Amino acid sequence: MYRPEIKIIDCTIRDGGLMNNWEFDKTMVREVFKGLADAGVDYVELGYRADQRQFSKQDHGPWRFCDEQDLRDVAYECGSKISVMIDVGRTDHETIPPRKESLVAMYRVATYAKDIDKAIFLANHVKKLGYEVAVNIMAASHVLEMDLEEALSQLAATDVDVVYLVDSFGYFYSEQIHFLAEKYLNHLPGKEIGIHCHNNQQLAFSNTVEGIIKGINYLDGSIYGMGRAAGNCTTELLLGFLKNPKYDLRPVLALIEKYFIPLKDELKWGYEIPYMITGIMNKHPRSALAFMRDQIEGNAQSSLVDYFNEHYEVADLD
Amino acid sequence: MYRPEIKIIDCTIRDGGLMNNWEFDKTMVREVFKGLADAGVDYVELGYRADQRQFSKQDHGPWRFCDEQDLRDVAYECGSKISVMIDVGRTDHETIPPRKESLVAMYRVATYAKDIDKAIFLANHVKKLGYEVAVNIMAASHVLEMDLEEALSQLAATDVDVVYLVDSFGYFYSEQIHFLAEKYLNHLPGKEIGIHCHNNQQLAFSNTVEGIIKGINYLDGSIYGMGRAAGNCTTELLLGFLKNPKYDLRPVLALIEKYFIPLKDELKWGYEIPYMITGIMNKHPRSALAFMRDQIEGNAQSSLVDYFNEHYEVADLD
Repeated sequence: MYRPEIKIIDCTIRDGGLMNNWEFDKTMVREVFKGLADAGVDYVELGYRADQRQFSKQDHGPWRFCDEQDLRDVAYECGSKISVMIDVGRTDHETIPPRKESLVAMYRVATYAKDIDKAIFLANHVKKLGYEVAVNIMAASHVLEMDLEEALSQLAATDVDVVYLVDSFGYFYSEQIHFLAEKYLNHLPGKEIGIHCHNNQQLAFSNTVEGIIKGINYLDGSIYGMGRAAGNCTTELLLGFLKNPKYDLRPVLALIEKYFIPLKDELKWGYEIPYMITGIMNKHPRSALAFMRDQIEGNAQSSLVDYFNEHYEVADLD
Repeated sequence: MYRPEIKIIDCTIRDGGLMNNWEFDKTMVREVFKGLADAGVDYVELGYRADQRQFSKQDHGPWRFCDEQDLRDVAYECGSKISVMIDVGRTDHETIPPRKESLVAMYRVATYAKDIDKAIFLANHVKKLGYEVAVNIMAASHVLEMDLEEALSQLAATDVDVVYLVDSFGYFYSEQIHFLAEKYLNHLPGKEIGIHCHNNQQLAFSNTVEGIIKGINYLDGSIYGMGRAAGNCTTELLLGFLKNPKYDLRPVLALIEKYFIPLKDELKWGYEIPYMITGIMNKHPRSALAFMRDQIEGNAQSSLVDYFNEHYEVADLD
C-alpha cells in the first residue's frame, strides 16, 4: 500500500550548501541529480536563486545562484523535476525567466511569518510566470498561533500550490507536529502541505512520518541528512519507508558511499551535541555552528557544559 | 508538568559493552556512574552477569560478569540504583547472592519469546532473593502476535515488576509502538512497562517518546547512544525532554565530551548505512557489524549497494 500523492523533495544541494557555501563541483551535482532521478525522487532542489546585487559569485558557489546555464550543465530530461528556493528579501524576482525558458519546475519561497505579504507577492509573481510554487514558513516554532493562523488564511486565498510546515530549529516532537499539521490542513483546503524538519533531536525522520500520517504529502529529505547544522530528514530513510514501487534506495546508497560519508566527516552536520542543545532550547543553531567550527579547527575555547550554561535562559526579564 | 513514575535506565556500559567487549576501565565506569547519578538517572546498568563456565575473564572485560567486587570499585551510595542484565541460557543463577549482600538493586532477564518459561524461572529466582526484576522480551519485531500474547499472559501471573518492549533491530515506527504498547499495558495490569529501542532508522528516541505517550514508564537510554550497532535512544535526549526537576543534563554532557565522542569515532555505533539497512529489513545487525568492522579496518570488500542486494530478500520460498 502506498499513497501516490506523496512526493519526495530532495534538498541536499540547497540546504547542504549552507554547510559548504554551495561549493559542490558540477560533476558531483550532475551525479547527485542522476542518482536521485534514478531513485525516483520527485523533485531535486539544486539551490537558491540569490540576488547577485547582494551576493557575489566570487564569495559563494554556483548553487547559491542557480543560473540557468549552470542548471543545464547538471540536469537532463527525466522523471525528476528541478526546484529552486528563493528567500524573501534576498532574490531579484525580475531576473526569473518565464517557465518555458527555464529548466526549473518549482520555486519555493522561504519566508518568516512576519514577511508573509512579501512572500505572497513573490509567489504570485513566479506563479504567473508558469511555475509550480510553494511557500515555506520558516521557524514555525517561533510563531505565535494567531500570527500563524493569519498567515495560513492569507495563503489560502492565493494560487500557491504547496505550503510547508518547517521546523527550522529541530524543536518539535510528534504531538506538536500533529497539532500543526492539522492546523495547516484545516486552513488550506485544496492545497498540498509539505514538511521540512531538522534533526537536532534525532526527530527529523519521525516527525516527517508523523506528518505523513496526518496527511502531509510533500516530504523534504536530503542525502545522508546533509543540511544546516543537525541537517534534515534523510532521503534514504524516506526511500526505505515509502512503498511506492517507483522508489529505489540503491542509487542513493551509491552516492552516500562515494560523496557524503567523507563530506560528513569533514563538515560534521548531523547529531552533534551543540545542535542538540539549540534544538532542545528552540534556538537558531548559529552559535552551535560557531562552536562546532572552533572544534573542527582545533580552536575550541569552551566545554559543552559551558556552552549549555551560556545558552540556558533563566528568569531575568521581570 | 512531569510524570513522577517515569524512570530512566541508562545501559551505556551494558549495551555499549557489546561494541568494545566490555573493556571499559574502572576509572571511566566510576565517572560514568557518578555522572549519571548526578544527572538524576534512576538506574545505571553496569553490565551482564554472564556464566563464567561459558565465558572467560581472559576473553572479555569485567562488565560482562559484574562481580560484586568490581561493582564495589565503581559505585557508591547515591540516589541511582544498579541494574544488571542476565541472558537466559548464559547465566549461572546459583551464583547470585541475596539482595542484602549485593550492590545490585534490579536484575533484568533478557529472553526471546520462545524461552519465556526459562525467563520466568530465572525471574522468580532473583525475585525471591529480594531484587527488583524486569523481563525484556527481545526482538519483538520477530514474534508472532499469538506467541507474544501467550508470553505476556504468562508474565501477568508472576511477581515480575517490569516487562520490556524491545525493538532489538530498530525496525518499528510510531504506529507499531502504539499497537504493542497498548498490548503490553492491557495484558499486564498492575505492572510497569519498559521500552528499549535501537536507532537503526533514527527512531529510538521518537519511539521511546511514543511509548511515554502511551503510558510506558521505564525508559532505556545510553550516553551518546552507545550500544550495539546503531545504538540506543540517547540518555541526553531523554534528559532534555523529560521535565522532572531532578534531572540535569550537564553531567552527561561532560561525560560525552570526555569519553564518548572519541569512543564513537573509533567504534562507530550509531546511524551508519549498513545498520539502517538491517533496520529497514527487520534483521539482526550481525552482518552489518561485520561490514562496518571491515570498513574500519580498511578491509572493505563490497559496496553498500552490494551489501543491500545481498540482504534484500526476494520471493524464493515457494
